[in-house]
Amino acid sequence: MDYPRKRLLMIPGPTNVPDRVNNAMIKAMVNHRSETFTHVLKGVTEKSKALFQTDSDPLILTASGTGGVEAAVWNIVRPGDKVVIPICGEFGTRLAEVIELAGGETVRVNSEVGTVPSLEAVEDAVRKTPGVKAVFVVHNETSGGTTLPYVERLAKVAADAGAFYVVDAISSLGGYSLPVDRWGIDICITGSQKCLAAPPGLALLSVSKKAADYIKKTPPRVRYFDLGRQMDFLAHGETPFTPAVSLYYALDEALSWLIEEGLDKRVERHGWHARTLYSLLGAFGLKGLADEKVRSNTIIAGLYPAGIDDKVFRKTLSEEHDLVIGAGVGNLKGKAFRIGSMGDVSSAHVNRTASAMAMTFQKMGYPVDLGKVASVLAAPS
Amino acid sequence: MDYPRKRLLMIPGPTNVPDRVNNAMIKAMVNHRSETFTHVLKGVTEKSKALFQTDSDPLILTASGTGGVEAAVWNIVRPGDKVVIPICGEFGTRLAEVIELAGGETVRVNSEVGTVPSLEAVEDAVRKTPGVKAVFVVHNETSGGTTLPYVERLAKVAADAGAFYVVDAISSLGGYSLPVDRWGIDICITGSQKCLAAPPGLALLSVSKKAADYIKKTPPRVRYFDLGRQMDFLAHGETPFTPAVSLYYALDEALSWLIEEGLDKRVERHGWHARTLYSLLGAFGLKGLADEKVRSNTIIAGLYPAGIDDKVFRKTLSEEHDLVIGAGVGNLKGKAFRIGSMGDVSSAHVNRTASAMAMTFQKMGYPVDLGKVASVLAAPS
Repeated sequence: MDYPRKRLLMIPGPTNVPDRVNNAMIKAMVNHRSETFTHVLKGVTEKSKALFQTDSDPLILTASGTGGVEAAVWNIVRPGDKVVIPICGEFGTRLAEVIELAGGETVRVNSEVGTVPSLEAVEDAVRKTPGVKAVFVVHNETSGGTTLPYVERLAKVAADAGAFYVVDAISSLGGYSLPVDRWGIDICITGSQKCLAAPPGLALLSVSKKAADYIKKTPPRVRYFDLGRQMDFLAHGETPFTPAVSLYYALDEALSWLIEEGLDKRVERHGWHARTLYSLLGAFGLKGLADEKVRSNTIIAGLYPAGIDDKVFRKTLSEEHDLVIGAGVGNLKGKAFRIGSMGDVSSAHVNRTASAMAMTFQKMGYPVDLGKVASVLAAPS
Repeated sequence: MDYPRKRLLMIPGPTNVPDRVNNAMIKAMVNHRSETFTHVLKGVTEKSKALFQTDSDPLILTASGTGGVEAAVWNIVRPGDKVVIPICGEFGTRLAEVIELAGGETVRVNSEVGTVPSLEAVEDAVRKTPGVKAVFVVHNETSGGTTLPYVERLAKVAADAGAFYVVDAISSLGGYSLPVDRWGIDICITGSQKCLAAPPGLALLSVSKKAADYIKKTPPRVRYFDLGRQMDFLAHGETPFTPAVSLYYALDEALSWLIEEGLDKRVERHGWHARTLYSLLGAFGLKGLADEKVRSNTIIAGLYPAGIDDKVFRKTLSEEHDLVIGAGVGNLKGKAFRIGSMGDVSSAHVNRTASAMAMTFQKMGYPVDLGKVASVLAAPS
């Protein structure tokens, strides 16, 4: 086995890690209780503020994004608390399950994969849930390739109900702008390995003053994911437990790149490439999975034409073109594919994806109008 | 700031990371849902068996060692469960607190820092706790530099009482041999950044068949740390959540080194260097913190002579000798120092530690008999 062969990762994470970010990991190991690590931690914290557009210090946990989301749950939800949550795919369901593990009672507002629940339906659920403790949402549902278009508006709904507002933006923040202070998001969570293009293993969380006050005065229910303890230690330039120092080095470099590029430019870049990839699906004669109005800028989900075997298709892409795209999940396994377009994505990456997919469809007997493909790439939307 | 300057890390972790391990991290990022990552995961899992001396597949979590310990707690302890735990320092106290967060009732068997509770006292507590659910122990208490000498014997006590037996061996496994299958340890936890000399960010856990059966048939209480889910996914060569891929690369290389060296040889090496370091304390005219009978092979704690300021001493070591040693914790802050001797520790590292400490004591006005120091190093015990 050629292990691990460098392939173009067009998947919903981990995403391509630029050399400057990857190489940052091999800096010298340091004591995590030292001025040197405090310097690193403060730098990463400061740069994360630009990502979340917040004046508060974001927290960084050594865990996957899911761990970060679970931390938010255990620090906000207490037994018997009512939580409203729109659900349109796997990650929404997972979040609801974690809320219930923590003792919360979920009010689920469901919609089909590929769609999102309407704002009105979510608003209605909030209104009909007296004493609602929190509204939790998955901003970008990678299983269906959809993005909630009303994250800002829902903040006001939650605030009017006196509820905390928590946004899982693991696969979107950086590809989208979510100004958490301005919009009133109490906790926003993302992961290092999506739109930030750093290796996986760190979760980043913004915490509003309101949420911080609540967490500090409420007895913790967990230790490793106790955000109050994280805040106390961060105030002294430390983490409560040994952090993944090497991943902090990489995240620091990844955030430097974000700041050099500018968040607005990065968001624009994600939108640009997503539109090209959706046009590409059209040029291939394929249907997108997501409703056009709510389709994601970071994950482009399409439905296979009849006769194309998912496993053969993706294996051919990987082995003959060094290109990795994602499979469908749940009911859509074998029926859908998902192209991640996050972090270090460029026109070159999109073009390479287009040609590899075109060649592979042709090879497998599904005819592609190469002229149409070329037109899309020549004049990206 | 020279950031991050490479210094000799003689602390209780993170420890020195050999170049071969550190450089392994920058291999190409891969899809964690791919044959390539399955190959990596299977390799690391297989090699971990040699570390734990087990036939079962160990689990690897993206978290610090503390996260791994918390996972063990939430998967074994349910509300109202009685848990016996010997405590002789910070990490024992932390463990007891986490057990209580999970709803357990702890029966704490305490002893002073620098000592360990007697086996008889722990046995007695187990006998007097009808229906005891589990016995949890911290094998190596880094705050006092002590090691429990009866981990094997206590296994039988726990088994006779029908209790699960969980051993936190974060700062000891690899420096000590803990054959978990033979001794009957249900869950044993260690961290990547101690005696394995890999970067921090991964926790490794062995799980006995008995514990695995219990966990699989018991409803999970947490998600990220749900070991049942970890086992289910591992059976298919995957992790439930995105793993810290780069850290797996490093751990794989670190475990390769362990296997090349041989666990027995590594344990012997740790014992050898620890004895030299304890002799060195003697040559300096200093008292060790730990009772001689239970002093640790991985963390050598000593008491400062009168007149030596801890902060100045360690700052001088760091700035003038590029040597980092640990501070005392809790009541011993300022009074004790702690030398970590774990993982990538060698005679060269011990000699450098000896000379740097000797020079610094001299400089600060505490006379050192350099002849004695030289004798210790010339004829290490």
